[in-house]
Amino acid sequence: MKDMSILLRDGIIATQNQSREIVEGDLYIEDGRINEIGRSNNEADHVIDCSGKVVIPGLINTHNHVANTLLRGFADDVHLHEMLEKTFEFDAKATRRDVQVGALLGCLEMIKSGTTTFVDLFYWEDEVARAVREAGMRAHLGWAVLDEEISTQRGTPLDNCSAFISKHRDEDLITPLVSLMGVYVCSEETFLAGQQLAEKEDVMLHTHLSETRKEVYDHQKKTGQRPIEWLSKIGFLTDRLLAAHIGWVTIGEVRVLAEKDVKVSHCPVSNMKLATGGVAPLPEMFENGVTVSLGTDSPVSNNSLDMFETMKFCALLHKADRWDARVFDAQKVFDLATIDGARAVGMEDKIGSIEIGKRADIAVLDFASPKTTPYDKARIVSHLVYSCNGANVTTTIVDGNMVVDQRKATGLKEDVIYDRANEIAVELFEEE
Amino acid sequence: MKDMSILLRDGIIATQNQSREIVEGDLYIEDGRINEIGRSNNEADHVIDCSGKVVIPGLINTHNHVANTLLRGFADDVHLHEMLEKTFEFDAKATRRDVQVGALLGCLEMIKSGTTTFVDLFYWEDEVARAVREAGMRAHLGWAVLDEEISTQRGTPLDNCSAFISKHRDEDLITPLVSLMGVYVCSEETFLAGQQLAEKEDVMLHTHLSETRKEVYDHQKKTGQRPIEWLSKIGFLTDRLLAAHIGWVTIGEVRVLAEKDVKVSHCPVSNMKLATGGVAPLPEMFENGVTVSLGTDSPVSNNSLDMFETMKFCALLHKADRWDARVFDAQKVFDLATIDGARAVGMEDKIGSIEIGKRADIAVLDFASPKTTPYDKARIVSHLVYSCNGANVTTTIVDGNMVVDQRKATGLKEDVIYDRANEIAVELFEEE
Repeated sequence: MKDMSILLRDGIIATQNQSREIVEGDLYIEDGRINEIGRSNNEADHVIDCSGKVVIPGLINTHNHVANTLLRGFADDVHLHEMLEKTFEFDAKATRRDVQVGALLGCLEMIKSGTTTFVDLFYWEDEVARAVREAGMRAHLGWAVLDEEISTQRGTPLDNCSAFISKHRDEDLITPLVSLMGVYVCSEETFLAGQQLAEKEDVMLHTHLSETRKEVYDHQKKTGQRPIEWLSKIGFLTDRLLAAHIGWVTIGEVRVLAEKDVKVSHCPVSNMKLATGGVAPLPEMFENGVTVSLGTDSPVSNNSLDMFETMKFCALLHKADRWDARVFDAQKVFDLATIDGARAVGMEDKIGSIEIGKRADIAVLDFASPKTTPYDKARIVSHLVYSCNGANVTTTIVDGNMVVDQRKATGLKEDVIYDRANEIAVELFEEE
Repeated sequence: MKDMSILLRDGIIATQNQSREIVEGDLYIEDGRINEIGRSNNEADHVIDCSGKVVIPGLINTHNHVANTLLRGFADDVHLHEMLEKTFEFDAKATRRDVQVGALLGCLEMIKSGTTTFVDLFYWEDEVARAVREAGMRAHLGWAVLDEEISTQRGTPLDNCSAFISKHRDEDLITPLVSLMGVYVCSEETFLAGQQLAEKEDVMLHTHLSETRKEVYDHQKKTGQRPIEWLSKIGFLTDRLLAAHIGWVTIGEVRVLAEKDVKVSHCPVSNMKLATGGVAPLPEMFENGVTVSLGTDSPVSNNSLDMFETMKFCALLHKADRWDARVFDAQKVFDLATIDGARAVGMEDKIGSIEIGKRADIAVLDFASPKTTPYDKARIVSHLVYSCNGANVTTTIVDGNMVVDQRKATGLKEDVIYDRANEIAVELFEEE
């Protein structure tokens, strides 16, 4: 639904501006842009009564493999390598259509739970792009790059990635990037070729990094260096890189990430469910000025794309890990999912907060619910992090377009997506 | 709504019977009892179409202070002792009406998220009982007992508890019990007097136990013994006791709990949020045959009463804690919240599973949602634990009565409860 103007009337707006102001009043959106905050006398094409509702910047999920939403509940409670084996079985059988349906399902879940932007890494990323466009989301998409000799992709991964970038370079909502699988399947040459491509095209880099103990120690055994040390030596660590996980790292490595301005996507739910053991040292990252954001990872290892849930897991994991309830507060966690997420994808001037002139990426939450009662301005952020979940979201707006209205996706046929996903699951997983 | 008969037509029923059968078909309820499972040709007063829906036993929350729902978001990100100070400030100001509204709000949250039974410990528990009755829930309620000289209750705590038991002894859905605050405020005499009362009245005992390191080591300093050792010596540990938390315990203590058949309420979200540090050793409890169940604790330290969320936190906390994704599976976690919860409150013959003859405590979940897609019989339990939350619940039935129908409470005025809770919060917390 392409909207000219939207007026969110009489809400409580958690702006996430510099002073983290909570404003009671209206939010007026025109031409995809935030135009007025506070009182608005504008007429609008769409007026939404937001009394009893809370208005927030759309959430930013900085690590996903959205097509794997089809694999939700398919590989639980097993070792990581068994999970990967099962995932590879799917990859071997999946068609382009399956990837597209998986991506549609995941996008639907994200917009209905208030996520407006995500970062993705997968093969057939053009199918993901098609789903993103249908859903009306903002996304940073990278065609997966790994060493050619172990790739099962048709064509070489780097060429596929390069072609994908060329094709999607000029889209409004899709930003292509170069995404590398990780040190276990990418040689020095592959990393550097990826980096050259990213520099030539002036796009971001994304990779898995220091997720598991095995990854770190295998790499050390092979090269004599830990992954971050090694990537630093080959010159791969720059401010262009968004690295996912960073669970098994030393304080020295945190300082290297800070120095090189590498951005981090922390995925607490996935790390806990896969029992990776390492906990990303967020307090030290904050102390050293590393930009940290939050990711769900894919529903194989989560099994949800609900960023509210990820915020709560993030908050509680670090309290429990440090035996300190004050390690960081709800406001900081909400920052990670909004303005820090925007910083992680290089878009802090465009999204991540509700400020005049920014693009209108917004979620509206119903607070007339048991789990958000009682509330007042002082408890809004607490409720967003500790009590809400995606089901509180009633309206989602991306770039000024209402993609979810009254809890229904406006551009996607929900029942058709459910039926197709269920059919594919039967075809792929239940054959004799 | 007092229903004569209800037919849940064409659902997928996660029975939680001995063989954990998943049955596709109907569930027929008459006179509060489960009457038919599979195919039913009965006419019913109420027929609910359950195609695309999953039918489960109502969830059992074995540790709560439901009136504290008013304090949601009021004491986050602080040390436990600061949280308690803030809670005591509330206690000092609260009126009977406040306790009742807090309890109503919490009961509303529980029934709307599929919880049908809970265990509670509070003062003015008669107000809680009134709310439970209005909500139509099943509950095990204990008036808080602690040493008389430090109690601020009107009258002596033990007499209050005793009077509460007499008054509520013969209710259908409310089961009174004796609940003691914990070793930090209960002397040997108080514990034994509570136990005598429980034996005389033939009711259960409930207490906080070994929740924090401070509790354990303070007690050891004072008495020379750890709390479980000490309670064992004075003869307080019996099969009558349901103990909450059990976070800081040795394997020897687990064996004592097993030997005495003490039941455990594990509260992972509260423990993580309060950063108690100790993780209840569930794998060792299972190995030794301890009955373990799940509790939310109150919304001061959670900040939700959603048992689906508690199931996911339970599963992921132990995987992360043991660096082992296989430590226990989704089915076991679902057991903790259903049949093992029933065992923990001594009601395994009446509730906790869907079997003919049992009381009809049931939740129905909508699975036509992004986060439960794709699904088939093999993924139902995974989705219940890892993907769903309370918002999937459309219908809740307690003892054959529909307490939530089409996502609305049938016996409670939701808007009135929200308004009153918000008013009280302003009165109590925002005065100059």
